[in-house]
Amino acid sequence: MNKKLFLKSAAMTAAALPLVGCSDKDNRPNIIFFLLDDYGWADSSVEYGDEAYPRNQQFDTPNMQKLADDGVMMTNAYVCSVSTPTRTSIMTGMHAAHEHITSFTAPLPNIPTDGAAGGKLATIYENLTYPFTHGEWNWNGLSPVEGVNNTQYCTPMVQILRDNGYYTLHVGKAHWGCAGCPAANPTNLGFLFAICGNSIGHPGSYQSEDNYGNTPEKWSYAAVQDLVQYYGTGTHLTAAITKEALKAMEYPISEGKPFYLNLGHFATHTPIQADKRYYQKYLDRGLDEGEAKFASMVEGADESLGIVREFLEEKGIADNTVIIFMSDNGGHSVDYSKGTEPHRQNLPLREGKGSVYEGGIHVPMMVLWPGKTAAGTRVTTPTISQDLFPTILEIAGINDYETVQEVDGKSLVNLFTKGSQYVKKAMDEGRIADRKAANRFVIPEEITGIAYDRPIISHYPHQWRVENQYDIDFLSAIREGDWKLVYRMLPGELELYNLSEDIAEQNNVAAEHPELVEKLRKDLSDQLRAWDATMPIYRATGEPAPMPDQL
Amino acid sequence: MNKKLFLKSAAMTAAALPLVGCSDKDNRPNIIFFLLDDYGWADSSVEYGDEAYPRNQQFDTPNMQKLADDGVMMTNAYVCSVSTPTRTSIMTGMHAAHEHITSFTAPLPNIPTDGAAGGKLATIYENLTYPFTHGEWNWNGLSPVEGVNNTQYCTPMVQILRDNGYYTLHVGKAHWGCAGCPAANPTNLGFLFAICGNSIGHPGSYQSEDNYGNTPEKWSYAAVQDLVQYYGTGTHLTAAITKEALKAMEYPISEGKPFYLNLGHFATHTPIQADKRYYQKYLDRGLDEGEAKFASMVEGADESLGIVREFLEEKGIADNTVIIFMSDNGGHSVDYSKGTEPHRQNLPLREGKGSVYEGGIHVPMMVLWPGKTAAGTRVTTPTISQDLFPTILEIAGINDYETVQEVDGKSLVNLFTKGSQYVKKAMDEGRIADRKAANRFVIPEEITGIAYDRPIISHYPHQWRVENQYDIDFLSAIREGDWKLVYRMLPGELELYNLSEDIAEQNNVAAEHPELVEKLRKDLSDQLRAWDATMPIYRATGEPAPMPDQL
Repeated sequence: MNKKLFLKSAAMTAAALPLVGCSDKDNRPNIIFFLLDDYGWADSSVEYGDEAYPRNQQFDTPNMQKLADDGVMMTNAYVCSVSTPTRTSIMTGMHAAHEHITSFTAPLPNIPTDGAAGGKLATIYENLTYPFTHGEWNWNGLSPVEGVNNTQYCTPMVQILRDNGYYTLHVGKAHWGCAGCPAANPTNLGFLFAICGNSIGHPGSYQSEDNYGNTPEKWSYAAVQDLVQYYGTGTHLTAAITKEALKAMEYPISEGKPFYLNLGHFATHTPIQADKRYYQKYLDRGLDEGEAKFASMVEGADESLGIVREFLEEKGIADNTVIIFMSDNGGHSVDYSKGTEPHRQNLPLREGKGSVYEGGIHVPMMVLWPGKTAAGTRVTTPTISQDLFPTILEIAGINDYETVQEVDGKSLVNLFTKGSQYVKKAMDEGRIADRKAANRFVIPEEITGIAYDRPIISHYPHQWRVENQYDIDFLSAIREGDWKLVYRMLPGELELYNLSEDIAEQNNVAAEHPELVEKLRKDLSDQLRAWDATMPIYRATGEPAPMPDQL
Repeated sequence: MNKKLFLKSAAMTAAALPLVGCSDKDNRPNIIFFLLDDYGWADSSVEYGDEAYPRNQQFDTPNMQKLADDGVMMTNAYVCSVSTPTRTSIMTGMHAAHEHITSFTAPLPNIPTDGAAGGKLATIYENLTYPFTHGEWNWNGLSPVEGVNNTQYCTPMVQILRDNGYYTLHVGKAHWGCAGCPAANPTNLGFLFAICGNSIGHPGSYQSEDNYGNTPEKWSYAAVQDLVQYYGTGTHLTAAITKEALKAMEYPISEGKPFYLNLGHFATHTPIQADKRYYQKYLDRGLDEGEAKFASMVEGADESLGIVREFLEEKGIADNTVIIFMSDNGGHSVDYSKGTEPHRQNLPLREGKGSVYEGGIHVPMMVLWPGKTAAGTRVTTPTISQDLFPTILEIAGINDYETVQEVDGKSLVNLFTKGSQYVKKAMDEGRIADRKAANRFVIPEEITGIAYDRPIISHYPHQWRVENQYDIDFLSAIREGDWKLVYRMLPGELELYNLSEDIAEQNNVAAEHPELVEKLRKDLSDQLRAWDATMPIYRATGEPAPMPDQL
């Protein structure tokens, strides 16, 4: 399937397009990928866990709840622990460690962000108290053209959609590559329309009063472009992006063309700035200022989801539009501006953004494919971001394509459809009695082609920020079934958790299951070797950190 | 034709679209509007005048010459004396004085730019040595929606193209309205794709080394957005915009859809910054630094035209693509950074940008409509920017449309086609012996429907910049045939020139032709009154300046 041939342009491949007759409407579904940023698993009133956690009760997210009710909740959805690798892995179909994009790209080129001072880009420090420095990685992101240094050359998923007749729209955060590289502009990745997205990873400001960061006093590379019409209008960035998304969908809808919309909200990344429409409500409820600001941003994102779904209804295309809702990584766990105590911002999950503990990589995910997903179901089979590459193409009916890169992801279509229907049947038959049972219900591999215990690997061979974060920096992990092995590279230690009983990763049971530790560290090491994965480098010797099976 | 009904969206009017059958290719021509900025009548090796002026000899513009050879030169093309009114008049079809957009809009809202210090936006001075202050005008530009203060509400020309099935592309400078207004974003005016254009009137920088103005040290509202991929790549802004234009055309070409491309170069507006590929050549030729920089920018623009035409050939659509080449106003005449002496930068024309003397409003214009325009011809009938509204729609085969505004422009299609063919016949028959004869050859009104002596009005009731510019500030003019009356509002004086003999406007013959002065000042006054045109206001009395027939 993944032959080495790069599809250069829509024009070149026009002859290969599926011929859709004039009187035959192109009935392929529209696809909306609704991606939030730094948005945690418990940051909504949608309860993915066995119980309603205190954090769930801080948020009003009725539209997310409605999506959960109408579609399927993917309760073990994994992504990378920071933004860029999740986004690039979806675009390349490769595991982040395989494409060697394991941390976030800077707005400017040729800057390994290892040890970056949060927010102070272009002022990169290296923490000399660590024995490691970083290894070589693709810190410039992905590239649709060959020969760009420190990039992963690829045939972007969106280019394949476009080449196959999809009308491709990007609105919002991009972050697929650095400035000076083709990937900084989404139109080089196959998007026919793109707005607001380039090499930046967070917005200068969410507030129109700040022109989204475009003022002489506030300007930085994080200033959001393309929204000049909203300057000073009182429109929060999330709302402006939503308006642009609706506008962008108008054309393909009027033409009867199936579309792919990559709707990438900057919310709820820092800076934490109130959505003023909702802020006071959360203060009145007793949240602290940071919590109330964050909750107001969450409700803004929830409203966006509601507006998009309402628009689809108005246009009469809701029944033929797939919505995939996800976050690009876990919530920030050490951000004072979010309120709550640091390291407790994703409870019950351990840690957050940057970390291979669940708080960093286990994210909310829901899918609605009208007529195909069974409403109100939970699918527990673990998934990972690169799976979305073949998934989205299969939803679009595209099964025959060529890529210059080797695709690692597996299509999740059967999980969304047959999987959720299998769960629904079990619910109807009373075999799933309650939420806890649903969260432990395993769909047999023969139903969906994806095993519950296929390996899910997270790899972060980096120092995340300038300060030491021992539960974030230089970690690697593998999950198989309910078991998760964490490799802490700095001390050279292995931890084992049973996520079914211990989603908070508080009880390291490695000593009790030596054979499991042995298997998992071998599986992790074999795969990282096969991908020639980046490892941190000992400053003293210039040698890479050992693989976990070399401990 | 101009009924009061606003076409809200493509979707609303889909039923009214011309039904183009699936097997019937849509053969309507593509249209490329190639617009340069602050680019003077003599700023190329294309010689519009009776002779080769010294200025013509400073430039290498082979692609502009080729367009002149292949198409028709409009030798009496008029526009407004500053950027915004030319651009808005094309979009609304209204005379600038009628839409009350008679000077340029600021990047930020609610700023009358009268007396603006050049470049120092948001630092607006009023020159208290003048007896006038400004009257009320639409300093926020045009608006596609009703109720935006200080805007002209309109049905944009591009919206009509889009509603009639054209694929509409904007690349480059926009400048139709201020920040915070819908017109700041070209996608609100009917463009399906838009890049680089918003409320700014000039670029922060042309150099990719400066990220086109997007650096912490250099940032201002003039920073050009959307070109992050070119940062630091050595790509001059003109070249980057050209690359984006080619990319934008790919989709409609691959779909076989007729397209309209508004290709708005920032070149050759200030800041005057070398296109490094060409700069040394002009220094070697003996031009001073400013002249060499300017000439290199001109050659960059010329190259862009060549690249676009080559692309059309490669795509096999050159034969069905109309190119309209123009400048938005005359060259800057008082800019030290351009080299040469101020007030001599547009010789032989008098003055430049901002002025109703020929240097400000008489611009280069060429049209190529393969098979319709006669090659190598000159059409002398005066034209004006708002004529392009009905012209472009007629080229697109759109003759039945509704607008909320009253359109003043007249279609130039007959001038381009029958007019140029009439000239060609005269050339073939030896009735036009040389260039001077061609520049005086008058096409009868019955051939084209447009009289050589229809009134062409220019109206600038403003102080242009902070310093006094007596040949720019507070001027109004009317041309009928070869006669031009200039009304200098400050002294309350009238001047009369015979442009056929005195294109440099050096010999005021008002005293010798009192009856002509009388007719022209009445025509000018009547029209300005009919449009309720803005006039400057006497500070002392609050009264408007008199109409020329009240002197």
